[in-house]
Amino acid sequence: MITDREKAAFEAGIKLGALYHQFVGTPIARETAAAVETAIEQAVGLQPFVTAVRVRLDREMMVTNRFGYSELAGRMFDVEIRTRVGGASCTARLHLEDDYPMMEIVEIHETPRDTDH
Amino acid sequence: MITDREKAAFEAGIKLGALYHQFVGTPIARETAAAVETAIEQAVGLQPFVTAVRVRLDREMMVTNRFGYSELAGRMFDVEIRTRVGGASCTARLHLEDDYPMMEIVEIHETPRDTDH
Amino acid sequence: MITDREKAAFEAGIKLGALYHQFVGTPIARETAAAVETAIEQAVGLQPFVTAVRVRLDREMMVTNRFGYSELAGRMFDVEIRTRVGGASCTARLHLEDDYPMMEIVEIHETPRDTDH
Amino acid sequence: MITDREKAAFEAGIKLGALYHQFVGTPIARETAAAVETAIEQAVGLQPFVTAVRVRLDREMMVTNRFGYSELAGRMFDVEIRTRVGGASCTARLHLEDDYPMMEIVEIHETPRDTDH
Repeated sequence: MITDREKAAFEAGIKLGALYHQFVGTPIARETAAAVETAIEQAVGLQPFVTAVRVRLDREMMVTNRFGYSELAGRMFDVEIRTRVGGASCTARLHLEDDYPMMEIVEIHETPRDTDH
Repeated sequence: MITDREKAAFEAGIKLGALYHQFVGTPIARETAAAVETAIEQAVGLQPFVTAVRVRLDREMMVTNRFGYSELAGRMFDVEIRTRVGGASCTARLHLEDDYPMMEIVEIHETPRDTDH
Repeated sequence: MITDREKAAFEAGIKLGALYHQFVGTPIARETAAAVETAIEQAVGLQPFVTAVRVRLDREMMVTNRFGYSELAGRMFDVEIRTRVGGASCTARLHLEDDYPMMEIVEIHETPRDTDH
Repeated sequence: MITDREKAAFEAGIKLGALYHQFVGTPIARETAAAVETAIEQAVGLQPFVTAVRVRLDREMMVTNRFGYSELAGRMFDVEIRTRVGGASCTARLHLEDDYPMMEIVEIHETPRDTDH
């Protein structure tokens, strides 16, 4: 038996792993960070079971190389995502923790089915 | 409260989402598929909480374009991964189902801590 | 001796190869295609020697899977890029040709240095 | 008119841009670097106009994070590639220069057609 809570956690993990490895390496600078944030949010928002996603990229880390731009690095991400499977909703995040881009579950809660009405 | 089972499911999701979006698009052919399978397995095997991973890429789908190669597509993946967090072990897979590259939990089981001894 | 024309062609190739393999696999749908086009154009525009870039993604190919979205495929790209090295300007494109996402030089021309004034 | 030399330079650029953005972000460690090098070389070797490719990844930069692995970064690449279009052969490389992963043409030479016999 696999619970809705477990499935919601699994789905949240998929989305964080996916967005990280899809977009790491993208040329980026402070002036273009907003467009990349929007594109990532919209891409993730299309995927199944996602009910909310917020992506912020740390502009302070966007120091310029000799040609005036950076590359999107895992350490720049600050992402919060919410997934829902059946009655369970999982909130997870990706953020920098002790210099490691950490993905972790923030909370899982179950909504009594009635409240969906 | 988040259980070890939920964490193990989350970690399995991360790894499947990550490998998919890291490697999709890689130029590939039947003769090179084994090297890509090995590279993916080794990359995933480095990540935290992974205890086993097996990657097979469907060579039948590797039809050649005008230049004699294919690109790794999500539909080619057949992956099974196992993660372990605390006493819980999650097996998940990525495989083609009704023409969609489906990621799903196969099983989560808990090992009594004693059996680790 | 390597000419400015050759360098401009090399730089155009880099950018087309880069954007293709950076963004292929991105979840996409007709409603989000514009945001992805913008993000790609801005990312490419940051890179050295690029003087112009236009990205169009074929919405007709964005047929929906069982979950209502597509993935950005190489076949969807219609890109034109211009690079400039010294006095040489290279225009190149990526577009679908006989079902293959073809990258090719459209034109290289040299501007007499005087005309920059 | 676009020369074979220019086309060979363009093709070399495509391959360097492609491999960089395809593989950056891959989880990697000293023990798995060889498998990734092989996979990249084989992937690039499939692409049109490539006659030789050598990929080395700097193991010295593979310092371990809290979970014991690194991610493939652009700064780790040392790549040499050769492309051939018609009678022209282009050698190009990607390597670290002043802390920037630089792509540049090393040499283009033309082989008299006769020497192909």
